[in-house]
Amino acid sequence: MEIKELIFTVPTGERNQMINITSRVLSAVRETKIQNGDVIVFCPHTTAGITINENADPDVVHDILLTLKDLIPQDKPGYRHCEGNSDSHCKSSLIGTSEQILIKNGVLNLGSWQGIFFCEFDGPRTRKVILQVKGQ
Amino acid sequence: MEIKELIFTVPTGERNQMINITSRVLSAVRETKIQNGDVIVFCPHTTAGITINENADPDVVHDILLTLKDLIPQDKPGYRHCEGNSDSHCKSSLIGTSEQILIKNGVLNLGSWQGIFFCEFDGPRTRKVILQVKGQ
Amino acid sequence: MEIKELIFTVPTGERNQMINITSRVLSAVRETKIQNGDVIVFCPHTTAGITINENADPDVVHDILLTLKDLIPQDKPGYRHCEGNSDSHCKSSLIGTSEQILIKNGVLNLGSWQGIFFCEFDGPRTRKVILQVKGQ
Repeated sequence: MEIKELIFTVPTGERNQMINITSRVLSAVRETKIQNGDVIVFCPHTTAGITINENADPDVVHDILLTLKDLIPQDKPGYRHCEGNSDSHCKSSLIGTSEQILIKNGVLNLGSWQGIFFCEFDGPRTRKVILQVKGQ
Repeated sequence: MEIKELIFTVPTGERNQMINITSRVLSAVRETKIQNGDVIVFCPHTTAGITINENADPDVVHDILLTLKDLIPQDKPGYRHCEGNSDSHCKSSLIGTSEQILIKNGVLNLGSWQGIFFCEFDGPRTRKVILQVKGQ
Repeated sequence: MEIKELIFTVPTGERNQMINITSRVLSAVRETKIQNGDVIVFCPHTTAGITINENADPDVVHDILLTLKDLIPQDKPGYRHCEGNSDSHCKSSLIGTSEQILIKNGVLNLGSWQGIFFCEFDGPRTRKVILQVKGQ
């Protein structure tokens, strides 16, 4: 059982944005030569997250971001955090900081329509993604 | 350290439904003979998810599905995705695509009231669940 | 590859509360002497959860709890579960039951602002946190 860590950066261009990072995760997994195991995709930021959702129609991403925006407005009576990004922190905890994807025969064992997305909730910024690939 | 993959199907009967799959996950773990480690329960679909919640009173499941339905309506001004299931994709990202459960002495190390649920958000369909059991 | 389990208790003082458990997770990881791998932080309760968010300004925690309370009210027409804590179960499934954190050179590989929080949604109670540290 081997454990390998890889890091890449994701430049984001909007305050709220979902960026498909599936091919970058796959490239990193291939680099490790690990054939069976799993990869943890970890976001080391508190106003961003990682999710898995549809990789085909970009309207799905639009509708997820719209839903999050309507549920968790940027300004809301009662917020105390003074940086104006309380909504970003909330979205981060609801979407989650990491995902785990299984590796089978050297590739990601995702469903046909699944892609891995870096979710920016307080951009634009330059973000980091940490991968840990474990397996044999 | 061994890594074993197992797959089972879950037929669903409603558009929104939570199906207790704990006993199926436990059977699969027992088949592997792995005594200590963990199991990743992964849903390869983008309009469904996996969660852990109360296994005793079915009213809990009812109330979770009701809450999700009220927060994320099926029709909403502004949705662009034309398949009529934007809500299903949103619920999937909020509930999450996978759970990890610890294995101790060959059984699932869950709390007394915890069960593992497959969450259907765009049924009825026949769904797949992928398990990866890792341990020794 | 070693697998070690540790447990600690978290006494909570409010109905809704987020308690920073980062230093307790770090101490447990150090005890194992594992240098590289990961730790699963698992909550064996159905009305609580684990999340990662900002460790610096306590107002962030305030604003996350406020948002959850407004989105998922304690009383809501249609709830069937008769224990008065349907909201707690919903919050648990949205926040999630576990987090996984990477271990690098014997410490937690978290971002500068990230802390690990035990989320109480039906306190005050005495809760348990189960850790599984895996690595070498």
